[in-house]
Amino acid sequence: MGKVAPRTLSGFMELLPAEQMKMEKMLEVLRRTYSLYGFTPLDTPIIESSEVLLAKGGGETEKQVYRFTKGDSDLSLRFDLTVPLAKYVALHYNELAFPFRRYQIGKVYRGERAQRGRFREFYQADIDVIGDGKLDIINEAEIPAIIYSTFKTLGLSRFKIHVNNRRILNGFYAMNGMSARAGEIMRTVDKLDKIGAEKVREILINDVGMFTQKADTVLDFMAISGTNEQVIARLEMLRGMDETFDQGLEELKTVAKYLGDFGVPEENFAIDLTIARGLDYYTGTVYETLITDHPEIGSVCSGGRYDDLAGFYTDRALPGAGISIGLTRLFYVLNEQGLLSDDIVTAPCDALVIPMTEDMGFAVSAATALRAAGIRTQLYTEQKKFKARMAYADKIKTPYAVIVGEDETREGVVSVKNMRTGDQVKLTPRDAAQHIKAGVAEMDSGRIIIEK
Amino acid sequence: MGKVAPRTLSGFMELLPAEQMKMEKMLEVLRRTYSLYGFTPLDTPIIESSEVLLAKGGGETEKQVYRFTKGDSDLSLRFDLTVPLAKYVALHYNELAFPFRRYQIGKVYRGERAQRGRFREFYQADIDVIGDGKLDIINEAEIPAIIYSTFKTLGLSRFKIHVNNRRILNGFYAMNGMSARAGEIMRTVDKLDKIGAEKVREILINDVGMFTQKADTVLDFMAISGTNEQVIARLEMLRGMDETFDQGLEELKTVAKYLGDFGVPEENFAIDLTIARGLDYYTGTVYETLITDHPEIGSVCSGGRYDDLAGFYTDRALPGAGISIGLTRLFYVLNEQGLLSDDIVTAPCDALVIPMTEDMGFAVSAATALRAAGIRTQLYTEQKKFKARMAYADKIKTPYAVIVGEDETREGVVSVKNMRTGDQVKLTPRDAAQHIKAGVAEMDSGRIIIEK
Repeated sequence: MGKVAPRTLSGFMELLPAEQMKMEKMLEVLRRTYSLYGFTPLDTPIIESSEVLLAKGGGETEKQVYRFTKGDSDLSLRFDLTVPLAKYVALHYNELAFPFRRYQIGKVYRGERAQRGRFREFYQADIDVIGDGKLDIINEAEIPAIIYSTFKTLGLSRFKIHVNNRRILNGFYAMNGMSARAGEIMRTVDKLDKIGAEKVREILINDVGMFTQKADTVLDFMAISGTNEQVIARLEMLRGMDETFDQGLEELKTVAKYLGDFGVPEENFAIDLTIARGLDYYTGTVYETLITDHPEIGSVCSGGRYDDLAGFYTDRALPGAGISIGLTRLFYVLNEQGLLSDDIVTAPCDALVIPMTEDMGFAVSAATALRAAGIRTQLYTEQKKFKARMAYADKIKTPYAVIVGEDETREGVVSVKNMRTGDQVKLTPRDAAQHIKAGVAEMDSGRIIIEK
Repeated sequence: MGKVAPRTLSGFMELLPAEQMKMEKMLEVLRRTYSLYGFTPLDTPIIESSEVLLAKGGGETEKQVYRFTKGDSDLSLRFDLTVPLAKYVALHYNELAFPFRRYQIGKVYRGERAQRGRFREFYQADIDVIGDGKLDIINEAEIPAIIYSTFKTLGLSRFKIHVNNRRILNGFYAMNGMSARAGEIMRTVDKLDKIGAEKVREILINDVGMFTQKADTVLDFMAISGTNEQVIARLEMLRGMDETFDQGLEELKTVAKYLGDFGVPEENFAIDLTIARGLDYYTGTVYETLITDHPEIGSVCSGGRYDDLAGFYTDRALPGAGISIGLTRLFYVLNEQGLLSDDIVTAPCDALVIPMTEDMGFAVSAATALRAAGIRTQLYTEQKKFKARMAYADKIKTPYAVIVGEDETREGVVSVKNMRTGDQVKLTPRDAAQHIKAGVAEMDSGRIIIEK
């Protein structure tokens, strides 16, 4: 038979078993944390009608969409989880309770130029709270508090959630008579951390065509820093000049206060006036999240408050607040940087039962006893020499090998070998279960990310 | 702004939150059970190169494939999880340990004619064990034992795994000189449960063109029934006439014995000579699974032993045994038949914390205490009247409402209301956590399927 060379498309992540297990553990942490905060899981189709998915239309994204026809249907693969959420809420409005809180973890598709670390198929992990007409500001603080909790559970401590408010920016540009060019200015300011203040100043003056004094006003404003209290004190000095600015400042102060109530320490969030997050969509609080030791990675989790989730489907006002983790990219960069723990258990099983007798009856019942105690147990099934069996145990990196020979069968015990230490003990299957359970719990702290 | 009517494509399942939660619980049971038996989770791309995905080519399936071009690439959406597994094993052969045991739960795509209960996007939940050159027969018993365990955990008792062996069929047709027409005969016999023995007999004689006596020989063979012991005794009478038949009979006896060792009761598996499962792929044991009270649903879980997983990618002999649950269809029919429990907790949270005070500080800390105890907790955030808040609690079907008013805040307690019984008690947040935890555990047995 003629062979086809097996390959996986470039831009599509396909992990080996041990790596995949780390990804699964991250997914499990996300599902558990999002659930703990009362978000309901959703699962929407990956394929939608192009008319529906591209209703908003335009922009860079549309060029990247995987779009095709099947029969008479013009179809597209989803490129984010926000448009499907908008469709879902507009379509099922009458059956939902508001505020509607959902999480969704799913693959999305963008035909970007292939590049190392850029993916065409990648997971997004989103949470959003949608209000019916109104949505209380406290949600704008709870959302980053959940992200704080998520990263802590993953094992990360050295990260910072950068918080800003679009009304503060819009108000600032208005009070300085720069509203008409606010978009252009914001796009330039966005490059601050990449090219520095001096280059940004040059662009603002030479390319955007601002007066030197105005450019400096912008740069001075963006340079406001210090503790959150200090930043707020500086902003207070601008109060009374623009209504939108004042509203934004009030919101920012409320969000900062509630973040404290939710238990987010000051060291994990910072007011950062340089954060803008696109031009049209967000209307209030906006967030980006940086890993302190790896700012070069960029934001690993972004979002904010928006006023109009589904305006292209419905006249209803559906404001919301949400955030999205680009999970595939996050996993990729953590892995590249060596920040994923090698200590957690990534084997397909916690215990590999190795029967060394003709009749496997006792080995099978020992495996059954281990499983009843919740231990992931594989029965080694092949007719191989003892050495080959132990080599297999090594290769799959099982934490425990459970050897069942003639002696053990006669005595009603199993030999439990800790594959990390080499220690071996004979125990009844019931005691073996407790022994293995405690050992695996100790090996596997559940913290997937390690800090060096 | 012109509106686009939101809609979901026909043939694509999109569930409301309570239903989705049931689906999530089924997914969780599958993940947990598959893991307990030492299978490693895999996640492969949904899009593959058409050349790779359709390497095997031909057949009905190819017409249904979602195939399209993006740039210069000829791409296809996966239509099952077996071809991606074959690609994965062939591609990563050197990095895998054999036997390689993987589970994969993922969406697949088939552009079938739209029809009620037929899906174009649906989940398959597969387990497979792949050997390197050889694979012990015990795997052919362990695979259905895992399915038994899965269905039991889901809450189903009244189901039967039908087991047969392709060598018995091939041997039977050979000893009767029918090998050349075996395919045609099997396709006809496959209709036995739909059209009955008399109609099958007519087709065998009139359309397939068999002598009456030969057709009766086939029908007599297929009619062999009784306990597994009785069926095997009848098959023993045919021993010695065909080598393949004898080998198949030995395998079937071994599988039946091991199924007992794995704890599968006789009432949950039956030797069924009418099961064939396609023509080319399977070579040994084959399975189908029927829900006893709903045979009209057809097989909800099928699979078997195959000798050549990846022949179109590699020369290596990669035999395996596997089984697949068509999860979306299973969920759909269970739901239609009213077999999904309404007692399990499908709310987005176990406890809805309702703050009735201006300052939410105590409510937030109560919510934090509940979450620390693992209770899925939502903080009600909107400025609404008490009645509207309780209506929301009713609508999302939260098992518990936790009311935090002025009195409670002063006393350092919360009012915990069981929304199913109406009982209300005042407790400290810590005691409330224990109370709610115990209550939810009692409400939610975890058994998703109910039998009537």
